[in-house]
Amino acid sequence: MSKLLIVGTVAFDAIETPFGKTDKILGGAATYISIAASQFNVESGIVSVVGGDFPKDFLEKLNQKKIDTSGIEIVEDGKTFFWSGKYHNDLNVRDTLVTELNVLADFQPKVPKYFQDADFLMLGNLHPSVQKAVIDQIPNRPKLVALDTMNFWMDNTWDELMEVVAKVDVITINDEEARQMSGEYSLVKAAQKIHNMGPQYVVIKKGEHGALLFNNGDVFFAPALPLEEVFDPTGAGDTFAGGFIGHMASTHDISFDNMKRAVIAGSNLASFCVEKFGTERMMNLTKEEVQSRLQQFKQLTQFDIELN
Amino acid sequence: MSKLLIVGTVAFDAIETPFGKTDKILGGAATYISIAASQFNVESGIVSVVGGDFPKDFLEKLNQKKIDTSGIEIVEDGKTFFWSGKYHNDLNVRDTLVTELNVLADFQPKVPKYFQDADFLMLGNLHPSVQKAVIDQIPNRPKLVALDTMNFWMDNTWDELMEVVAKVDVITINDEEARQMSGEYSLVKAAQKIHNMGPQYVVIKKGEHGALLFNNGDVFFAPALPLEEVFDPTGAGDTFAGGFIGHMASTHDISFDNMKRAVIAGSNLASFCVEKFGTERMMNLTKEEVQSRLQQFKQLTQFDIELN
Repeated sequence: MSKLLIVGTVAFDAIETPFGKTDKILGGAATYISIAASQFNVESGIVSVVGGDFPKDFLEKLNQKKIDTSGIEIVEDGKTFFWSGKYHNDLNVRDTLVTELNVLADFQPKVPKYFQDADFLMLGNLHPSVQKAVIDQIPNRPKLVALDTMNFWMDNTWDELMEVVAKVDVITINDEEARQMSGEYSLVKAAQKIHNMGPQYVVIKKGEHGALLFNNGDVFFAPALPLEEVFDPTGAGDTFAGGFIGHMASTHDISFDNMKRAVIAGSNLASFCVEKFGTERMMNLTKEEVQSRLQQFKQLTQFDIELN
Repeated sequence: MSKLLIVGTVAFDAIETPFGKTDKILGGAATYISIAASQFNVESGIVSVVGGDFPKDFLEKLNQKKIDTSGIEIVEDGKTFFWSGKYHNDLNVRDTLVTELNVLADFQPKVPKYFQDADFLMLGNLHPSVQKAVIDQIPNRPKLVALDTMNFWMDNTWDELMEVVAKVDVITINDEEARQMSGEYSLVKAAQKIHNMGPQYVVIKKGEHGALLFNNGDVFFAPALPLEEVFDPTGAGDTFAGGFIGHMASTHDISFDNMKRAVIAGSNLASFCVEKFGTERMMNLTKEEVQSRLQQFKQLTQFDIELN
């Protein structure tokens, strides 16, 4: 079974959408990525940090999903990273209300010995220096290294970001971030420029408008499943990334055709994530529901047209 | 061979995009629809009106594409409908600079005798009363009637619009118009409400984000082809509609599976339309180019995933 190492935030989120609001709930990139990846047959572990205020039963919930949390450092006298945001009626737009880095501010990642030979590495959204420090702790290069990042690091830590981006195989970013990173409005041109920064595969997430996978000239598109209601988009991008890397790790096949399936698998899981607040839907997702919705994805996208 | 009757504007357009601007060029919904449909094996004719200022060689260009223009009334002492618009850097947003209805203001459509037994009817964007007057001139209901409309008619002629919408099989509108027409933000819910207004099939055009086809519970999605450059989006929606109805008319098959192919055919042609100003690209499009790009659509969307 593949070992999948996941780096990213484990956090408290407080979310407000047009449909309601939450108190502090379990959140963070590594949380969503690992829960999504737990749908696949992989051994996954998280590298992250939380404060003494972080409930033990949140970690136990992850352990129940067979997610190794021994790499989550607990800083007893520190506070867990906290993010609070409010979504507009157009759920593609959100305001960040609070960002308290807390224990994340001085985080020095330590990869547990067991995961130092990980086959697959998912670098969730975090300071690029932390992402790079994790790569440096894995002596033999994994089969596939994927990285997610965001505009904040482009604005504030461009050089460090470029250093780590040069070392990864896959980057997953959203459309606006791809435009910012490349200086190109056309996503086709943006992907070309980002290829030149290092990643052989560029995945551009467009939220409700789906996701594009680029590989030097080849392009594949996965739509988002049209839903009656999107309740809370928080974690959808990370869930997509977790589904993507989970599929890749469980199949051990890094061909472009398999990467297409990974993009579909990620889109499929993300369509569940947004149905309830936070991790609630993903925590209670069955394999049957996942398979049934994959069938919907096929019906949504597959056609048979004659070429003369 | 199917007879396809197309109703809509034949117009002068003056277009400004970030890439340049044009003087008055050939435009109008019926123009784009008929040129797109001419890619298919159908006999098509236009019902429309122009002024004495309309160049005869524009009509001849349509005739060279085997498009019957005998139903285009020429009002010798009138002026042709004129539209002028300017696109923003985000080409999804445009400002209308000029709309001169001219001869369109008093237009009474007359369906040529030869097309009174049309098998397929495409009601392009026009006053809903004109659309209805055309339906009323076809004694035997066509195999398929499709209608395109826009927010202007929702704002100003709601009752007339509802009257004609109730009589059609397919409606094609963009996402904002679907939301306005239904009062629902979710496109899934919007499509359900629009079904209840009459059309069994609802096609929602999302521009660069593709198109959705709904049929009471079933849904199909066609992406737009990711392009390096979109030069001028004018006519893309009408070209999509023309490709859709052209495919349906040439195949004589009104099943949902064939309608999926029609949505792909429409998306495929629209991807050419936007590559140059106005009708230029569509006027010089070869069957080989169309087939080659259909292959790209397959590569873009088709995947093979195991369902357990």
